[in-house]
Amino acid sequence: MELFYAYEVSGKYCRLDAEESAHCVKVLRHREGDEIDVTDGLGTLYHCRLSLDSPKGAEAEILETQSGFGAHPYHLTVGCCPTKNNERFEWFVEKATELGIDRIVPLIGEHSERKVYKTDRARRIALSATKQSLKGRIPEIAEPLSVKDFIFSCHYGQNEDTLCLIAYCFEDPSVPRRSICEVLEKAMDVKGITVLIGPEGDFSPEEAQLALEHGYIPIHLGPSRLRTETAAVTAVEAVYLWSLTL
Amino acid sequence: MELFYAYEVSGKYCRLDAEESAHCVKVLRHREGDEIDVTDGLGTLYHCRLSLDSPKGAEAEILETQSGFGAHPYHLTVGCCPTKNNERFEWFVEKATELGIDRIVPLIGEHSERKVYKTDRARRIALSATKQSLKGRIPEIAEPLSVKDFIFSCHYGQNEDTLCLIAYCFEDPSVPRRSICEVLEKAMDVKGITVLIGPEGDFSPEEAQLALEHGYIPIHLGPSRLRTETAAVTAVEAVYLWSLTL
Repeated sequence: MELFYAYEVSGKYCRLDAEESAHCVKVLRHREGDEIDVTDGLGTLYHCRLSLDSPKGAEAEILETQSGFGAHPYHLTVGCCPTKNNERFEWFVEKATELGIDRIVPLIGEHSERKVYKTDRARRIALSATKQSLKGRIPEIAEPLSVKDFIFSCHYGQNEDTLCLIAYCFEDPSVPRRSICEVLEKAMDVKGITVLIGPEGDFSPEEAQLALEHGYIPIHLGPSRLRTETAAVTAVEAVYLWSLTL
Repeated sequence: MELFYAYEVSGKYCRLDAEESAHCVKVLRHREGDEIDVTDGLGTLYHCRLSLDSPKGAEAEILETQSGFGAHPYHLTVGCCPTKNNERFEWFVEKATELGIDRIVPLIGEHSERKVYKTDRARRIALSATKQSLKGRIPEIAEPLSVKDFIFSCHYGQNEDTLCLIAYCFEDPSVPRRSICEVLEKAMDVKGITVLIGPEGDFSPEEAQLALEHGYIPIHLGPSRLRTETAAVTAVEAVYLWSLTL
Protein backbone atom coordinates (compact mmCIF):
# COMPACT_ATOMS: atom_id res chain seq x y z
CA MET A 1 0.00 0.00 0.00
CA GLU A 2 1.27 3.46 -1.01
CA LEU A 3 0.08 6.49 0.92
CA PHE A 4 0.04 10.04 -0.44
CA TYR A 5 -0.30 13.22 1.54
CA ALA A 6 -2.90 15.82 0.51
CA TYR A 7 -2.21 19.40 1.54
CA GLU A 8 -5.82 20.21 0.76
CA VAL A 9 -9.07 18.26 0.97
CA SER A 10 -12.18 20.12 -0.15
CA GLY A 11 -15.52 18.67 -1.05
CA LYS A 12 -15.02 15.53 -3.13
CA TYR A 13 -11.35 16.19 -4.00
CA CYS A 14 -7.86 15.76 -2.53
CA ARG A 15 -5.04 17.93 -3.86
CA LEU A 16 -1.40 16.84 -3.72
CA ASP A 17 1.46 19.35 -3.56
CA ALA A 18 4.25 19.46 -6.16
CA GLU A 19 6.47 16.93 -4.35
CA GLU A 20 3.69 14.38 -3.79
CA SER A 21 2.34 14.91 -7.32
CA ALA A 22 5.77 14.29 -8.86
CA HIS A 23 6.16 11.12 -6.76
CA CYS A 24 2.67 9.91 -7.73
CA VAL A 25 2.74 10.76 -11.44
CA LYS A 26 6.43 10.85 -12.46
CA VAL A 27 7.96 8.20 -10.19
CA LEU A 28 5.06 5.77 -9.72
CA ARG A 29 3.53 6.67 -13.11
CA HIS A 30 -0.06 6.79 -11.86
CA ARG A 31 -2.50 7.98 -14.49
CA GLU A 32 -6.00 9.43 -14.52
CA GLY A 33 -8.45 6.76 -13.33
CA ASP A 34 -5.93 4.93 -11.09
CA GLU A 35 -7.10 4.35 -7.52
CA ILE A 36 -4.77 5.76 -4.85
CA ASP A 37 -4.82 6.19 -1.07
CA VAL A 38 -4.43 9.66 0.36
CA THR A 39 -4.22 11.00 3.91
CA ASP A 40 -4.90 14.51 5.10
CA GLY A 41 -2.27 14.09 7.82
CA LEU A 42 -5.00 14.64 10.42
CA GLY A 43 -6.04 11.02 10.80
CA THR A 44 -8.35 10.44 7.82
CA LEU A 45 -7.63 8.07 4.95
CA TYR A 46 -9.23 8.79 1.58
CA HIS A 47 -9.46 6.09 -1.04
CA CYS A 48 -9.50 8.07 -4.27
CA ARG A 49 -9.49 7.93 -8.03
CA LEU A 50 -6.84 10.10 -9.69
CA SER A 51 -8.76 12.73 -11.68
CA LEU A 52 -5.86 14.99 -12.71
CA ASP A 53 -2.46 13.36 -13.26
CA SER A 54 -0.43 16.56 -13.34
CA PRO A 55 3.10 16.06 -11.97
CA LYS A 56 2.94 19.62 -10.58
CA GLY A 57 -0.46 19.45 -8.90
CA ALA A 58 -2.38 16.17 -9.00
CA GLU A 59 -6.01 15.88 -7.92
CA ALA A 60 -7.99 12.82 -6.86
CA GLU A 61 -11.70 12.25 -6.40
CA ILE A 62 -12.68 10.78 -3.02
CA LEU A 63 -14.41 7.39 -3.28
CA GLU A 64 -14.25 6.27 0.37
CA THR A 65 -13.36 7.91 3.68
CA GLN A 66 -11.89 6.18 6.75
CA SER A 67 -11.27 8.18 9.90
CA GLY A 68 -8.77 7.26 12.64
CA PHE A 69 -6.59 5.40 10.14
CA GLY A 70 -3.52 3.86 11.87
CA ALA A 71 -4.49 5.57 15.14
CA HIS A 72 -3.16 4.48 18.55
CA PRO A 73 -5.21 4.20 21.77
CA TYR A 74 -3.42 6.98 23.68
CA HIS A 75 -2.39 10.61 23.27
CA LEU A 76 1.37 10.97 23.75
CA THR A 77 3.40 14.16 23.97
CA VAL A 78 7.17 13.96 24.42
CA GLY A 79 9.09 17.08 25.36
CA CYS A 80 12.74 16.33 24.62
CA CYS A 81 15.88 18.44 24.43
CA PRO A 82 17.43 18.01 20.96
CA THR A 83 20.85 16.37 20.90
CA LYS A 84 24.02 18.16 19.83
CA ASN A 85 24.04 15.82 16.84
CA ASN A 86 20.86 16.63 14.87
CA GLU A 87 20.66 13.17 13.28
CA ARG A 88 20.15 11.54 16.67
CA PHE A 89 17.11 13.66 17.45
CA GLU A 90 15.75 13.19 13.91
CA TRP A 91 16.15 9.44 14.36
CA PHE A 92 13.99 9.70 17.51
CA VAL A 93 11.37 11.63 15.49
CA GLU A 94 11.30 8.87 12.85
CA LYS A 95 11.06 6.00 15.35
CA ALA A 96 8.48 7.73 17.56
CA THR A 97 6.35 8.38 14.45
CA GLU A 98 6.56 4.73 13.37
CA LEU A 99 5.52 3.52 16.84
CA GLY A 100 2.85 6.13 17.48
CA ILE A 101 3.18 9.62 18.96
CA ASP A 102 1.02 12.74 18.75
CA ARG A 103 3.25 15.66 19.64
CA ILE A 104 6.99 16.21 19.88
CA VAL A 105 8.19 19.41 21.52
CA PRO A 106 11.91 20.26 21.14
CA LEU A 107 12.98 21.73 24.46
CA ILE A 108 15.83 24.05 25.37
CA GLY A 109 17.03 23.27 28.88
CA GLU A 110 19.33 25.28 31.11
CA HIS A 111 21.98 22.60 30.54
CA SER A 112 21.28 22.20 26.79
CA GLU A 113 24.28 22.57 24.52
CA ARG A 114 21.85 23.18 21.67
CA LYS A 115 20.08 26.48 22.30
CA VAL A 116 18.45 26.73 18.85
CA TYR A 117 16.48 24.12 16.93
CA LYS A 118 15.01 24.37 13.43
CA THR A 119 11.96 22.14 13.00
CA ASP A 120 11.75 21.91 9.19
CA ARG A 121 13.86 18.75 8.75
CA ALA A 122 12.11 16.98 11.65
CA ARG A 123 8.73 17.81 10.08
CA ARG A 124 9.78 16.30 6.74
CA ILE A 125 10.99 13.19 8.57
CA ALA A 126 7.70 12.93 10.50
CA LEU A 127 5.74 13.18 7.23
CA SER A 128 7.75 10.49 5.44
CA ALA A 129 7.68 8.18 8.49
CA THR A 130 3.90 8.68 8.74
CA LYS A 131 3.45 7.62 5.11
CA GLN A 132 5.96 4.77 5.39
CA SER A 133 4.31 3.34 8.51
CA LEU A 134 0.82 3.81 7.02
CA LYS A 135 -0.63 6.17 9.58
CA GLY A 136 -3.27 8.77 8.88
CA ARG A 137 -2.04 11.39 11.31
CA ILE A 138 1.27 13.24 11.15
CA PRO A 139 2.62 13.95 14.65
CA GLU A 140 2.95 17.62 15.44
CA ILE A 141 6.53 18.88 15.70
CA ALA A 142 6.05 21.98 17.82
CA GLU A 143 8.26 25.05 17.80
CA PRO A 144 10.99 24.86 20.47
CA LEU A 145 10.18 25.94 24.03
CA SER A 146 12.30 26.36 27.14
CA VAL A 147 11.85 23.49 29.61
CA LYS A 148 10.21 25.86 32.07
CA ASP A 149 7.77 27.32 29.50
CA PHE A 150 6.87 23.76 28.47
CA ILE A 151 6.08 22.86 32.10
CA PHE A 152 3.97 26.01 32.49
CA SER A 153 2.12 25.26 29.24
CA CYS A 154 1.63 21.54 29.87
CA HIS A 155 1.21 20.11 33.34
CA TYR A 156 -0.86 17.81 35.53
CA GLY A 157 -4.51 18.73 36.11
CA GLN A 158 -4.67 20.76 32.91
CA ASN A 159 -6.29 17.97 30.92
CA GLU A 160 -8.25 15.23 32.61
CA ASP A 161 -6.70 11.76 32.52
CA THR A 162 -3.30 13.12 31.51
CA LEU A 163 -0.27 11.62 33.20
CA CYS A 164 2.83 13.86 33.31
CA LEU A 165 6.16 12.08 33.74
CA ILE A 166 9.72 13.34 34.09
CA ALA A 167 12.79 11.14 33.58
CA TYR A 168 15.35 12.61 35.95
CA CYS A 169 17.74 11.24 38.55
CA PHE A 170 16.73 13.14 41.67
CA GLU A 171 19.53 13.40 44.25
CA ASP A 172 16.96 14.02 46.97
CA PRO A 173 16.13 10.58 48.50
CA SER A 174 12.72 11.92 49.53
CA VAL A 175 11.79 11.86 45.82
CA PRO A 176 11.24 8.17 45.02
CA ARG A 177 11.35 7.15 41.37
CA ARG A 178 9.42 4.22 39.93
CA SER A 179 10.00 2.74 36.49
CA ILE A 180 7.83 4.15 33.69
CA CYS A 181 6.28 0.66 33.32
CA GLU A 182 5.20 0.56 36.97
CA VAL A 183 3.65 4.04 36.77
CA LEU A 184 1.77 3.19 33.54
CA GLU A 185 0.53 -0.16 34.93
CA LYS A 186 -0.85 1.41 38.09
CA ALA A 187 -2.45 4.40 36.38
CA MET A 188 -6.22 4.27 35.92
CA ASP A 189 -8.10 5.38 32.78
CA VAL A 190 -5.14 7.22 31.33
CA LYS A 191 -5.81 8.77 27.94
CA GLY A 192 -3.03 11.30 27.70
CA ILE A 193 0.64 10.91 28.62
CA THR A 194 3.31 13.62 28.65
CA VAL A 195 6.95 12.67 29.11
CA LEU A 196 9.86 15.06 29.77
CA ILE A 197 13.32 13.94 28.59
CA GLY A 198 16.30 16.12 29.46
CA PRO A 199 19.40 17.15 27.52
CA GLU A 200 22.78 15.38 27.56
CA GLY A 201 23.61 17.53 30.61
CA ASP A 202 20.26 16.55 32.24
CA PHE A 203 17.71 19.00 33.66
CA SER A 204 18.83 21.66 36.10
CA PRO A 205 17.65 21.03 39.68
CA GLU A 206 15.38 24.10 39.30
CA GLU A 207 13.75 22.67 36.15
CA ALA A 208 13.21 19.30 37.87
CA GLN A 209 11.78 21.00 40.98
CA LEU A 210 9.41 23.09 38.83
CA ALA A 211 8.18 19.89 37.14
CA LEU A 212 7.47 18.30 40.53
CA GLU A 213 5.58 21.41 41.63
CA HIS A 214 3.43 21.06 38.50
CA GLY A 215 2.48 17.45 39.17
CA TYR A 216 5.10 15.64 37.10
CA ILE A 217 5.76 12.12 38.39
CA PRO A 218 9.47 11.23 38.65
CA ILE A 219 10.26 8.07 36.67
CA HIS A 220 13.31 6.10 35.63
CA LEU A 221 13.85 4.19 32.39
CA GLY A 222 15.74 1.29 33.91
CA PRO A 223 19.35 0.71 34.96
CA SER A 224 20.99 1.28 31.58
CA ARG A 225 22.71 4.57 30.89
CA LEU A 226 20.86 5.71 27.76
CA ARG A 227 21.67 8.50 25.34
CA THR A 228 19.05 11.28 25.19
CA GLU A 229 17.46 9.98 21.97
CA THR A 230 17.49 6.40 23.27
CA ALA A 231 15.77 7.51 26.47
CA ALA A 232 13.13 9.34 24.42
CA VAL A 233 12.49 6.29 22.22
CA THR A 234 12.40 4.04 25.30
CA ALA A 235 9.65 6.23 26.77
CA VAL A 236 7.65 5.96 23.51
CA GLU A 237 8.25 2.18 23.41
CA ALA A 238 7.09 1.84 27.03
CA VAL A 239 3.80 3.61 26.21
CA TYR A 240 3.38 1.69 22.92
CA LEU A 241 4.04 -1.71 24.55
CA TRP A 242 1.89 -0.82 27.56
CA SER A 243 -1.00 -0.04 25.18
CA LEU A 244 -0.78 -3.63 23.85
CA THR A 245 -1.73 -4.89 27.30
CA LEU A 246 -4.87 -2.71 27.60
CA MET B 1 33.07 8.04 34.34
CA GLU B 2 35.26 7.13 31.36
CA LEU B 3 35.64 3.47 30.42
CA PHE B 4 38.59 2.03 28.49
CA TYR B 5 38.74 -1.31 26.75
CA ALA B 6 41.66 -3.66 27.44
CA TYR B 7 42.49 -6.16 24.72
CA GLU B 8 44.60 -8.04 27.25
CA VAL B 9 44.34 -8.58 31.01
CA SER B 10 47.09 -10.70 32.54
CA GLY B 11 48.03 -10.95 36.17
CA LYS B 12 47.93 -7.51 37.74
CA TYR B 13 47.92 -5.53 34.48
CA CYS B 14 45.50 -4.36 31.77
CA ARG B 15 46.88 -3.50 28.33
CA LEU B 16 45.18 -1.04 26.00
CA ASP B 17 45.52 -1.24 22.21
CA ALA B 18 46.86 1.65 20.11
CA GLU B 19 43.45 3.29 19.63
CA GLU B 20 42.48 3.13 23.30
CA SER B 21 45.98 4.19 24.39
CA ALA B 22 45.91 7.24 22.10
CA HIS B 23 42.47 8.20 23.44
CA CYS B 24 43.60 7.74 27.05
CA VAL B 25 47.03 9.41 26.80
CA LYS B 26 46.83 11.85 23.85
CA VAL B 27 43.18 12.95 23.95
CA LEU B 28 42.39 12.73 27.67
CA ARG B 29 46.02 13.38 28.69
CA HIS B 30 46.11 10.74 31.41
CA ARG B 31 49.56 10.29 32.91
CA GLU B 32 51.35 7.61 34.91
CA GLY B 33 49.73 7.35 38.34
CA ASP B 34 46.24 8.47 37.18
CA GLU B 35 43.41 6.14 38.17
CA ILE B 36 41.30 4.87 35.24
CA ASP B 37 38.50 2.34 34.71
CA VAL B 38 39.03 -0.48 32.26
CA THR B 39 36.81 -3.30 31.03
CA ASP B 40 37.86 -6.57 29.44
CA GLY B 41 34.68 -6.55 27.33
CA LEU B 42 33.66 -9.82 29.00
CA GLY B 43 31.80 -8.28 31.93
CA THR B 44 34.55 -7.35 34.37
CA LEU B 45 35.45 -3.80 35.41
CA TYR B 46 38.99 -3.09 36.56
CA HIS B 47 39.75 0.03 38.55
CA CYS B 48 43.41 0.67 37.69
CA ARG B 49 46.35 2.99 38.09
CA LEU B 50 48.05 3.94 34.81
CA SER B 51 51.55 2.49 35.01
CA LEU B 52 52.74 3.14 31.42
CA ASP B 53 51.35 6.24 29.66
CA SER B 54 52.47 5.30 26.16
CA PRO B 55 50.07 6.59 23.47
CA LYS B 56 50.85 3.45 21.42
CA GLY B 57 50.40 0.84 24.16
CA ALA B 58 49.36 1.99 27.62
CA GLU B 59 49.36 -0.32 30.63
CA ALA B 60 47.52 -0.02 33.91
CA GLU B 61 47.91 -1.83 37.24
CA ILE B 62 44.72 -3.39 38.59
CA LEU B 63 43.67 -1.99 41.98
CA GLU B 64 40.11 -3.35 42.19
CA THR B 65 38.03 -5.88 40.25
CA GLN B 66 34.25 -5.84 39.80
CA SER B 67 32.55 -8.64 37.87
CA GLY B 68 29.15 -8.39 36.16
CA PHE B 69 29.58 -4.65 35.67
CA GLY B 70 26.51 -3.13 33.94
CA ALA B 71 25.02 -6.61 33.45
CA HIS B 72 21.33 -7.21 32.72
CA PRO B 73 19.17 -9.97 34.28
CA TYR B 74 18.53 -11.90 31.05
CA HIS B 75 20.42 -13.42 28.14
CA LEU B 76 19.14 -12.01 24.86
CA THR B 77 20.01 -13.11 21.33
CA VAL B 78 18.46 -11.31 18.36
CA GLY B 79 18.77 -12.84 14.92
CA CYS B 80 17.94 -10.07 12.47
CA CYS B 81 18.26 -9.68 8.71
CA PRO B 82 20.41 -6.59 8.00
CA THR B 83 18.65 -3.77 6.19
CA LYS B 84 19.52 -2.66 2.66
CA ASN B 85 20.75 0.57 4.25
CA ASN B 86 23.65 -0.44 6.52
CA GLU B 87 23.24 2.57 8.80
CA ARG B 88 19.81 1.39 9.90
CA PHE B 89 21.14 -1.97 11.06
CA GLU B 90 24.14 -0.32 12.74
CA TRP B 91 21.74 1.99 14.53
CA PHE B 92 19.94 -1.10 15.87
CA VAL B 93 23.30 -2.49 17.06
CA GLU B 94 24.04 0.74 18.94
CA LYS B 95 20.63 0.98 20.60
CA ALA B 96 20.46 -2.71 21.49
CA THR B 97 23.90 -2.41 23.10
CA GLU B 98 22.86 0.63 25.15
CA LEU B 99 19.73 -1.16 26.38
CA GLY B 100 21.32 -4.55 26.98
CA ILE B 101 21.82 -7.45 24.58
CA ASP B 102 24.20 -10.40 24.52
CA ARG B 103 24.34 -11.60 20.94
CA ILE B 104 23.34 -10.18 17.57
CA VAL B 105 23.33 -12.53 14.61
CA PRO B 106 23.00 -10.94 11.14
CA LEU B 107 20.77 -13.26 9.14
CA ILE B 108 20.40 -13.79 5.41
CA GLY B 109 16.82 -14.71 4.60
CA GLU B 110 15.39 -16.12 1.38
CA HIS B 111 13.72 -12.73 0.84
CA SER B 112 16.75 -10.66 1.94
CA GLU B 113 17.92 -8.04 -0.51
CA ARG B 114 21.24 -8.00 1.35
CA LYS B 115 22.92 -11.37 0.81
CA VAL B 116 26.31 -10.36 2.28
CA TYR B 117 27.09 -8.59 5.56
CA LYS B 118 30.48 -7.47 6.88
CA THR B 119 30.55 -7.38 10.68
CA ASP B 120 33.58 -5.12 11.30
CA ARG B 121 31.70 -1.79 11.47
CA ALA B 122 28.95 -3.26 13.67
CA ARG B 123 31.62 -4.60 16.05
CA ARG B 124 33.24 -1.17 16.36
CA ILE B 125 29.81 0.36 17.05
CA ALA B 126 29.06 -2.30 19.69
CA LEU B 127 32.39 -1.56 21.42
CA SER B 128 31.89 2.21 21.50
CA ALA B 129 28.24 1.87 22.64
CA THR B 130 29.39 -0.53 25.39
CA LYS B 131 31.91 2.02 26.67
CA GLN B 132 29.49 4.94 26.26
CA SER B 133 26.71 3.17 28.18
CA LEU B 134 29.16 1.96 30.86
CA LYS B 135 28.72 -1.76 30.44
CA GLY B 136 31.37 -4.35 31.13
CA ARG B 137 30.42 -6.78 28.40
CA ILE B 138 30.54 -6.15 24.65
CA PRO B 139 27.70 -7.95 22.86
CA GLU B 140 28.83 -10.55 20.39
CA ILE B 141 28.24 -9.65 16.74
CA ALA B 142 28.25 -13.10 15.16
CA GLU B 143 29.21 -13.89 11.58
CA PRO B 144 26.16 -13.93 9.25
CA LEU B 145 24.07 -17.09 8.99
CA SER B 146 21.17 -18.07 6.78
CA VAL B 147 17.83 -17.94 8.61
CA LYS B 148 17.53 -21.72 8.35
CA ASP B 149 21.05 -22.38 9.71
CA PHE B 150 20.30 -20.00 12.58
CA ILE B 151 17.15 -21.95 13.46
CA PHE B 152 19.05 -25.25 13.29
CA SER B 153 21.84 -23.83 15.49
CA CYS B 154 19.57 -22.11 18.00
CA HIS B 155 16.11 -23.43 18.89
CA TYR B 156 13.77 -24.31 21.71
CA GLY B 157 14.81 -27.09 24.09
CA GLN B 158 18.48 -26.63 23.30
CA ASN B 159 19.14 -24.53 26.39
CA GLU B 160 16.93 -24.79 29.46
CA ASP B 161 14.77 -21.75 30.21
CA THR B 162 15.31 -20.27 26.75
CA LEU B 163 12.30 -18.76 25.03
CA CYS B 164 12.47 -18.65 21.20
CA LEU B 165 10.26 -16.06 19.50
CA ILE B 166 9.60 -15.23 15.86
CA ALA B 167 8.00 -11.98 14.71
CA TYR B 168 6.11 -12.96 11.57
CA CYS B 169 2.64 -12.37 10.21
CA PHE B 170 1.37 -15.91 9.68
CA GLU B 171 -1.37 -16.12 7.06
CA ASP B 172 -2.53 -19.41 8.55
CA PRO B 173 -5.29 -18.56 11.08
CA SER B 174 -4.48 -21.77 12.97
CA VAL B 175 -1.25 -20.07 14.08
CA PRO B 176 -2.34 -17.56 16.73
CA ARG B 177 0.08 -14.74 17.54
CA ARG B 178 0.29 -13.04 20.91
CA SER B 179 2.14 -9.80 21.61
CA ILE B 180 5.74 -10.17 22.76
CA CYS B 181 4.70 -8.56 26.08
CA GLU B 182 2.00 -11.18 26.72
CA VAL B 183 4.39 -14.04 25.97
CA LEU B 184 7.11 -12.61 28.23
CA GLU B 185 4.64 -11.93 31.08
CA LYS B 186 3.26 -15.46 31.02
CA ALA B 187 6.64 -17.17 30.72
CA MET B 188 8.04 -18.77 33.89
CA ASP B 189 11.68 -18.59 35.02
CA VAL B 190 12.95 -17.40 31.68
CA LYS B 191 16.69 -16.76 31.60
CA GLY B 192 17.38 -16.77 27.90
CA ILE B 193 15.38 -15.19 25.08
CA THR B 194 15.99 -15.54 21.35
CA VAL B 195 14.08 -13.34 18.89
CA LEU B 196 13.95 -13.73 15.12
CA ILE B 197 13.34 -10.57 13.06
CA GLY B 198 12.91 -10.93 9.31
CA PRO B 199 14.11 -8.86 6.35
CA GLU B 200 12.22 -6.03 4.65
CA GLY B 201 10.61 -8.74 2.46
CA ASP B 202 9.73 -10.77 5.61
CA PHE B 203 10.57 -14.46 6.13
CA SER B 204 9.64 -16.99 3.47
CA PRO B 205 6.76 -19.28 4.51
CA GLU B 206 9.29 -22.15 4.60
CA GLU B 207 11.56 -20.26 7.01
CA ALA B 208 8.60 -19.43 9.26
CA GLN B 209 7.38 -23.02 9.17
CA LEU B 210 10.86 -24.30 10.06
CA ALA B 211 10.93 -21.93 13.05
CA LEU B 212 7.58 -23.27 14.27
CA GLU B 213 8.83 -26.83 13.90
CA HIS B 214 11.79 -25.89 16.11
CA GLY B 215 9.68 -24.50 18.92
CA TYR B 216 9.67 -20.80 18.02
CA ILE B 217 6.62 -19.00 19.43
CA PRO B 218 4.90 -16.69 16.92
CA ILE B 219 4.66 -13.15 18.28
CA HIS B 220 3.62 -9.72 17.04
CA LEU B 221 5.09 -6.36 17.98
CA GLY B 222 1.84 -4.44 18.01
CA PRO B 223 -0.35 -2.83 15.34
CA SER B 224 2.22 -0.38 13.97
CA ARG B 225 3.97 -1.16 10.72
CA LEU B 226 7.62 -1.03 11.81
CA ARG B 227 10.78 -0.97 9.74
CA THR B 228 13.08 -3.98 10.25
CA GLU B 229 15.47 -2.11 12.55
CA THR B 230 12.58 -0.58 14.51
CA ALA B 231 11.05 -4.04 14.98
CA ALA B 232 14.41 -5.34 16.23
CA VAL B 233 14.82 -2.46 18.70
CA THR B 234 11.19 -2.88 19.82
CA ALA B 235 11.90 -6.53 20.66
CA VAL B 236 14.96 -5.49 22.70
CA GLU B 237 12.93 -2.74 24.41
CA ALA B 238 10.16 -5.23 25.25
CA VAL B 239 12.67 -7.54 26.96
CA TYR B 240 14.47 -4.64 28.68
CA LEU B 241 11.22 -3.10 29.99
CA TRP B 242 9.86 -6.52 30.97
CA SER B 243 13.01 -7.11 33.05
CA LEU B 244 12.19 -3.96 35.07
CA THR B 245 9.02 -5.68 36.31
CA LEU B 246 10.80 -8.83 37.55
